[in-house]
Amino acid sequence: MPFDSGVTYRPGARFGPAHVRAGSRLLRPYHPGLDVEPFGAQQVADAGDIACNPFDIQEAIGQIQRAAEGLLADSGCLVATGGDHTIALPLLRATHQLWGPVALLHFDAHLDTWDTYFGAPYTHGTPFRRASEEGLLRKDRSVHVGTRGPLYAPTDLKEDADLGFQVIDAMTVGRDGPDAIAERIRAHVGDAPLYVSVDVDVLDPAHAPGTGTPEAGGLSSRELLAILRGLATGPRIVGVDLVEVCPAYDHAEITGIAAAHVIYELLAVLALTRTG
Amino acid sequence: MPFDSGVTYRPGARFGPAHVRAGSRLLRPYHPGLDVEPFGAQQVADAGDIACNPFDIQEAIGQIQRAAEGLLADSGCLVATGGDHTIALPLLRATHQLWGPVALLHFDAHLDTWDTYFGAPYTHGTPFRRASEEGLLRKDRSVHVGTRGPLYAPTDLKEDADLGFQVIDAMTVGRDGPDAIAERIRAHVGDAPLYVSVDVDVLDPAHAPGTGTPEAGGLSSRELLAILRGLATGPRIVGVDLVEVCPAYDHAEITGIAAAHVIYELLAVLALTRTG
Amino acid sequence: MPFDSGVTYRPGARFGPAHVRAGSRLLRPYHPGLDVEPFGAQQVADAGDIACNPFDIQEAIGQIQRAAEGLLADSGCLVATGGDHTIALPLLRATHQLWGPVALLHFDAHLDTWDTYFGAPYTHGTPFRRASEEGLLRKDRSVHVGTRGPLYAPTDLKEDADLGFQVIDAMTVGRDGPDAIAERIRAHVGDAPLYVSVDVDVLDPAHAPGTGTPEAGGLSSRELLAILRGLATGPRIVGVDLVEVCPAYDHAEITGIAAAHVIYELLAVLALTRTG
Amino acid sequence: MPFDSGVTYRPGARFGPAHVRAGSRLLRPYHPGLDVEPFGAQQVADAGDIACNPFDIQEAIGQIQRAAEGLLADSGCLVATGGDHTIALPLLRATHQLWGPVALLHFDAHLDTWDTYFGAPYTHGTPFRRASEEGLLRKDRSVHVGTRGPLYAPTDLKEDADLGFQVIDAMTVGRDGPDAIAERIRAHVGDAPLYVSVDVDVLDPAHAPGTGTPEAGGLSSRELLAILRGLATGPRIVGVDLVEVCPAYDHAEITGIAAAHVIYELLAVLALTRTG
Amino acid sequence: MPFDSGVTYRPGARFGPAHVRAGSRLLRPYHPGLDVEPFGAQQVADAGDIACNPFDIQEAIGQIQRAAEGLLADSGCLVATGGDHTIALPLLRATHQLWGPVALLHFDAHLDTWDTYFGAPYTHGTPFRRASEEGLLRKDRSVHVGTRGPLYAPTDLKEDADLGFQVIDAMTVGRDGPDAIAERIRAHVGDAPLYVSVDVDVLDPAHAPGTGTPEAGGLSSRELLAILRGLATGPRIVGVDLVEVCPAYDHAEITGIAAAHVIYELLAVLALTRTG
Amino acid sequence: MPFDSGVTYRPGARFGPAHVRAGSRLLRPYHPGLDVEPFGAQQVADAGDIACNPFDIQEAIGQIQRAAEGLLADSGCLVATGGDHTIALPLLRATHQLWGPVALLHFDAHLDTWDTYFGAPYTHGTPFRRASEEGLLRKDRSVHVGTRGPLYAPTDLKEDADLGFQVIDAMTVGRDGPDAIAERIRAHVGDAPLYVSVDVDVLDPAHAPGTGTPEAGGLSSRELLAILRGLATGPRIVGVDLVEVCPAYDHAEITGIAAAHVIYELLAVLALTRTG
Repeated sequence: MPFDSGVTYRPGARFGPAHVRAGSRLLRPYHPGLDVEPFGAQQVADAGDIACNPFDIQEAIGQIQRAAEGLLADSGCLVATGGDHTIALPLLRATHQLWGPVALLHFDAHLDTWDTYFGAPYTHGTPFRRASEEGLLRKDRSVHVGTRGPLYAPTDLKEDADLGFQVIDAMTVGRDGPDAIAERIRAHVGDAPLYVSVDVDVLDPAHAPGTGTPEAGGLSSRELLAILRGLATGPRIVGVDLVEVCPAYDHAEITGIAAAHVIYELLAVLALTRTG
Repeated sequence: MPFDSGVTYRPGARFGPAHVRAGSRLLRPYHPGLDVEPFGAQQVADAGDIACNPFDIQEAIGQIQRAAEGLLADSGCLVATGGDHTIALPLLRATHQLWGPVALLHFDAHLDTWDTYFGAPYTHGTPFRRASEEGLLRKDRSVHVGTRGPLYAPTDLKEDADLGFQVIDAMTVGRDGPDAIAERIRAHVGDAPLYVSVDVDVLDPAHAPGTGTPEAGGLSSRELLAILRGLATGPRIVGVDLVEVCPAYDHAEITGIAAAHVIYELLAVLALTRTG
Repeated sequence: MPFDSGVTYRPGARFGPAHVRAGSRLLRPYHPGLDVEPFGAQQVADAGDIACNPFDIQEAIGQIQRAAEGLLADSGCLVATGGDHTIALPLLRATHQLWGPVALLHFDAHLDTWDTYFGAPYTHGTPFRRASEEGLLRKDRSVHVGTRGPLYAPTDLKEDADLGFQVIDAMTVGRDGPDAIAERIRAHVGDAPLYVSVDVDVLDPAHAPGTGTPEAGGLSSRELLAILRGLATGPRIVGVDLVEVCPAYDHAEITGIAAAHVIYELLAVLALTRTG
Repeated sequence: MPFDSGVTYRPGARFGPAHVRAGSRLLRPYHPGLDVEPFGAQQVADAGDIACNPFDIQEAIGQIQRAAEGLLADSGCLVATGGDHTIALPLLRATHQLWGPVALLHFDAHLDTWDTYFGAPYTHGTPFRRASEEGLLRKDRSVHVGTRGPLYAPTDLKEDADLGFQVIDAMTVGRDGPDAIAERIRAHVGDAPLYVSVDVDVLDPAHAPGTGTPEAGGLSSRELLAILRGLATGPRIVGVDLVEVCPAYDHAEITGIAAAHVIYELLAVLALTRTG
Repeated sequence: MPFDSGVTYRPGARFGPAHVRAGSRLLRPYHPGLDVEPFGAQQVADAGDIACNPFDIQEAIGQIQRAAEGLLADSGCLVATGGDHTIALPLLRATHQLWGPVALLHFDAHLDTWDTYFGAPYTHGTPFRRASEEGLLRKDRSVHVGTRGPLYAPTDLKEDADLGFQVIDAMTVGRDGPDAIAERIRAHVGDAPLYVSVDVDVLDPAHAPGTGTPEAGGLSSRELLAILRGLATGPRIVGVDLVEVCPAYDHAEITGIAAAHVIYELLAVLALTRTG
Repeated sequence: MPFDSGVTYRPGARFGPAHVRAGSRLLRPYHPGLDVEPFGAQQVADAGDIACNPFDIQEAIGQIQRAAEGLLADSGCLVATGGDHTIALPLLRATHQLWGPVALLHFDAHLDTWDTYFGAPYTHGTPFRRASEEGLLRKDRSVHVGTRGPLYAPTDLKEDADLGFQVIDAMTVGRDGPDAIAERIRAHVGDAPLYVSVDVDVLDPAHAPGTGTPEAGGLSSRELLAILRGLATGPRIVGVDLVEVCPAYDHAEITGIAAAHVIYELLAVLALTRTG
C-alpha cells in the first residue's frame, strides 16, 4: 500500500513496500524459535502494490478498501505493508466485513486516535478513532503497546480510553519484559479475532531510524519480536499491517530488515494459529 | 512554502525552506561578481513559513495565494522557497494581479506542463499548463531551460509549444555555454516583466542530490549561477521561486548550499535591475 | 552555547544547539508519564545562541559565564545546550553564585575529571575537576552515571574519588535497571540543590551516533529517560546542561531527537520539582 | 549479472542490477532528444538475474556465457547490467558466436587490459586483454574512452596498443567536447558491428560515487549521454553492458539513476540503428 | 585478514581490519572494569595485514593458515580481525597445531555450520562444520551464542547438534541477562582451551549496521561486553577472531568502535587469564 | 598536519590526513598523462602526522613551523596535508627560510586574506595576509584561482590586491578552460620559486562535499587536475599544501580520492620540474 499522503511530519513511506521487500531477501524458510515453516505451512503470496491516488486521501482510502476486500475474498487473511498508518482504516473496514468487530493490538509510539489534523479527519494520526467510531473494533479487547513521548493534552488519554483502548507504554515494556507483556496481551484479547497493526516507530529510533515520526525511548527489535512470538499460543489473528517504513531516513537497511523480520514473525504465528 | 503534497515521486520538499535557510549561513553581504550588496541595496526580509494544509491541495493553493498577495502588497516582490513546484501556480496568480501576464523563465529538468496526474489537475507537474491556461503568462516570452530526460509522448513537446514555451534543453546549455544561453534568454524575454522559477532539479544530481525527481545529465551549479548572473543587465524580475529541495536526500548540504547561492544570485540581480 | 574548541577527538558540537532545536519540532505540550505540561506549568524561553570566541577557550569560558549569569538573574534556572562539555564549568560558576555548592548528577561515558590535555587546563575532559577544585560542587553529593570504556591509568579513578565523586557505571545501569539507579541517585543527592549535566555520549552509539567521543556499551535512550523520570519526586534541580551533540555524525536526527527528549524530560521534572 | 567476485578493490556490484532497476523507475516512454520511443520501436524485456557462482570465477563465467547465448538466440541483442567488468568476457564470447569479431567501444576510467591480478587471469581488470587474445575484437576498430588516473607502468599503454586499442582519455573529452568525441568514435568504428561496454566509473565520482574503483577527473553524466547520443547516426550496435554499479557507496541513487539513463540512451540508439 | 570472498550476501569485510584500527583510536591503556592494563600486562603487537588471494578461496585459506602458524609460533596467541568468517577455519587449524582440539565460543547471529553454498565447501557459512569434521573442536565444550533469525530447515539445528554445539540464542540472552549467560558458558567450557570467535553480526543491526548479513533482534554492545567480561575468571583463551565488519554499511564508526571495544575487552580478559 | 582549530565554520579537518591516505590506496606508480613515475623519479616518504596543540593556535603554529623546518632540512621539499588553512602560514615561514619570498599559487573558493575573526589574527581565513605582511610572498607573482561566493565588503578585494594578489575566479576558469588558465598562471609566476596551496573547497561541493566552508559553483576535479598538469612545463615548485579535507562530510571517499589525485598530480609535476 504505497500511500503516504496522510503523514504529518516526514513523508516517504510510499517507498516502504519496496524497502521491506528488499529487507526480506535474507529470510530463510524455517523459523527455529517456533519450529514452523511459515511459507510451507500455509500459502503466502506477494500481491504486489495497490495503485492509490496520492492527491486525494478519500479516494485512496476507497481504493485500498476495495483492493483489500478483493484480496481477503481470495485469501482469507491479509498482511499489508505501508505506506502510512492511514491505510489501517480501510483495512479494518474490509476485515470487519469478514469478521465483525475485531480486537486491535496496536504497536506504536503514538495513540493514533486523534480527531483531526488541519481539519482533516482521515490521516495517519486518526485511523483508530475513526475505526472505533465506525464500530470496527472490540472496545473491550483493544490495546496500544509501546506508546511514549509527549501528547497534546491530558484529554488525549481520556478520549483514547473512552474509545476503548488499554495502554501499555514503552516504559512498562522495559520494566516488565516482553514475556509478561505478551501474557497481558493474550489475557486482554482473549478469544476475540485479532488485528495486529505495527507502526515501525514503536521501535526506538536506534532500531528503526527510517520512519516518519520517531520518538526516543522505544522498544528494541528483540523486544518486539519476543512479544509477537508470545502470541503463538494465543488469539486467532485475522489481519496484519506494518506501516511507516520510510526508506529515505533508513541506514544500511536496518529498518527494512527489522520490518521484514516482524512480518516473518507474524507469518510464523499465523501459520501456527490459523486453522486450515 | 513548506508544501509537498503535490509530488509524484519522492516527497520531502516540505522541509526545503528550513534546509535552504541552513544552507545560507555562510552567505556574506557583498557580491564581487556583480559588485553589489544584495541586502544593502534593497530591503530583504525573511517572511517565515506559510501554514498550508498538507491534506488538501486546493486549500493549500488558496492559502499560498492569499499569503503571497499579502506579502506582495507589502513588498512588491517575493522570492519564495518551496516546497514542491505546485506552489508556482498560486505565486503566479498573485504576481499576475500586480503585473498582468509575465514572461516565465523556468529552470527545470521537466516541462511541468502536463495536464493531470491520477486525474488531479493541480500537482507539481502541471503548474505552468494551468498558468498558461489562466492567462498568467506571456506566451511569446516564456522559456524552459535545462530540460532533459524522457517524456511520456511526442505530444508533450507539441502541447508545451502550443502553450507558448520555448525550450533550451540541458544538452544545449552544455554545447553553447552559459553566456550564450543568458543572451538568448534576454533576447527572448525582452522587456516583459519576468518571473523566474527554479526547480533545483535543473542541476545535475551530482550538484543537487536532494530533490524529488532527479534526472542525469543536468547543469552544474556554476552553469546555473552564470546564466542567472547574465540577467543582471536584462529584464525586470518581478517574482522568483526556488523549489523541490528535498533534504532527506541531500548530503553535506550541497543541495541546500547550491539553492542558497541561487537565491543570493537572484537577489543580487534584483538589486541591480529593480528600480526603487 | 555553540562552542566546541575544547574537544579532543571529533569536533562539530558547535552545531549542536541548532540540531537539538530541529530535533524538538515533534515535541507536544503534555507529558503523559508525569502528567504535567512542561511549557504550561512554568515559563520556558529559548534564549538563543551565545556568541563565544572559537579561537580562545579562556575568553569563551568568560563569555559563557557572563551570559549564564545574566540569564540566571532573569530566570532563576538555565537549561543549556552545547557545544562541548567545557561549557559546564562556566555554567557551574554562574550557578554557584546563586546557589553555593551544588550536587552534580553527571551522565557521561567519561569521568571528565582529567587534569590537562596538551597542557591545557580547560577542555571538555576537565570541567568537573576544575569545578571541584573551585569549590563549586558538593563533594558528598555528586555522582557520575553511565561511565564505561578504558581510562588512562588506575589513578584516574582514585583522583576522581578524591574529588568527591561516586561512580555508577554503564554495566551497573544494565544490571540493576533504571528504577534502582534513580533511587540510588535520589538517596545520594538528598536535599542538596542539584545540577544535572548530560553528555549525550552516555547513550550507546546506537542511540547517539552524533557525538564526539563515542564508547560502545552505553545506555539506551529509554534507560536514560527512565532514570531522569525517577527524579520527579526528588531533589530540587537548579541547573541543567546537555552537551556533545555533534550533528555531522548523526543520522536521521536520532541523536538530536534523543537530546530533545532528554531536555523535555528534564523540563517536565523541573515543572514538578521547582517551587514558584 | 549479479557477479562481483572479480573485483580488486570495493566489492558490492552484485547488487548493481537491483539498483539500476530501482533507478529506472522514473524513465518515461518517449526520448525527445532522439525522437524515438525505445520501448515502442522495439521489444524490450527484463530477462531477470542470472544465477552465477560467487565462489568460482571460471564457473561463473561459464554460467554467464551460457545464459547470454540463450538470451541472444532468442532476442538477437542483449543489454547486460553488472556486476563487475569480468562479465564482459563471456558476453563478448556469446556475441562473437553471432557476429564474429566486433568493434569495442569501451567507456571506463581504466584500460581493463591488464594480464593478471594475484595470478588470476579472469578478473574485472583483464576482460579485454582476454577478449583480444581470443580474437573476439576487431583490433582496428576498438577504443577506450574516458581513461584517467595512474597506471602500473609505461608498458600498460604499450601492451594496450598492441592489443589494438585506441585511447581517448578523460582530459581529451573535456578539451574537445562530446560532439567531437562521438564523431571520432564513429569514424574509428566505421561499419563494424559494435559492442558498447560502459563501466560506470567512467563518470566522475561526483556523478557516480557508487562504484568500486573510483578515479577523480572523470566525465559528467551529460558528457557521457551526449557521446552516446552521437552514435544514433552511427554504427550498428550488437551488444551492450553497463557494469560496476556498487550501491553501498551510492547516495540518493545518483549512480543508479545515471546508469539507468545511460541504458535508456543506448536503448534509444538501438531503436534507431537496428534493422528490424 | 582482509579477505571477504567467502561471503554470501553483502561483501566488503576486506576493509574491516582498517576500520577496526580506526575505531580503536580512542582506546586508552587502563580497563577499569577488570582493573588491568591490557597493553601493559602482556605484549601486544599489530602484525599488519595478511596478503591473501581474493580470487581463490582455497589458496587464501592456505595463506591465512601459514601466516597464522608463523604468528602463533612467535607469539603464542593470535587475535585476528576479519575479513569474513571463512578465516576462522585456517585460524582454528593453526591453533589446533599448538593446542589440539579447542572449545569454541562462537558469538554470531548464524550457526555457520552449513555444508555448502553453490556447491562450495569453504565459505563464511561453513567454517565450523569443516572445523568439527576435521577434529579441531571439542564437541562437548562448544557453544553458539546470540543466534537468531530463520534457518533453511529443521535439520540445520539437528546437524549442528550432531557436530557438538550447544545453542544459546539471542532471545535467551535477553531473557536471562549477560551474567547468567557468562556463567553458563564458563560451566560448559570448563577447563578446555578456548577459542573465541565473534561475528560482529551477533550485535543487533542498531549496534552494528556495518556487517554483511544483519538480522534483527540481536545483542546490544553492552550485553556482549558484559558476557565477555564474565570470562575473566574463566577458561584459558588460546585464540580469538572478530569478523564480518563491513565498513561500507557502517555509520559514524559505530560498528568499528564496537568491534574495537570487543577486542579490547578480550585483550583484558587475556591479560588476566593467560599465564606468563 | 592534523590541526583544525583555526576554522570558522565546520571543523573536522584534523582527520584530513588519515582520510587522504585512505583515498590514496588506489594510486599506481605510473602517470600516463605526464609519462613519469612520481615515486620512481624522486624519493617520496610519508613523514607521518605532526603533533600540534588543538587548544592553542599560536603554539600549534610554532609546532608546525618547527616540524616543517626539520623536514625541509632533510628533504628540500614538503607536500603537506591539512588540517585547516591556518597551517599554510608556518609552512610558508619555513619555506621562506630556504627560498626567500615565493610566488603563491592559491586554489581556493576564498581569498583567505582577511585580517581577523573574533579578533584572532591567526585562523584559516587569514594566512595569506599574514604571509604577505611578513614578506614571505612575491607580491608580483601570486595569484588566487577558483574564488567565488560572497565577500564581506568591496574592500576585501581592494585589500587583497594591495597585498599583491591577482584573482582568477571560478567563473573565469569555466569560461576560458584549464589550458588557458594554466598558461596565464605560468606567465604570471614566471621563474619565481612557487608555493602551491590547494584548499580542497576550490572544487565544487559536488566534487568535494567533505570540506568545511563549501561554496557552490566551483571547479570540477578534472579542471583542477588539468590546470595542475599544465604546470609540468612551468615554474619550479618548492612547496605544496592541500588543506580543508573534512571527512565527516565526505561520501564514498570522493573528496579523499580527489585530494589524493591532486597530490599525485603535483608529485608528478614535481618529478618533472625539480632539478636533482
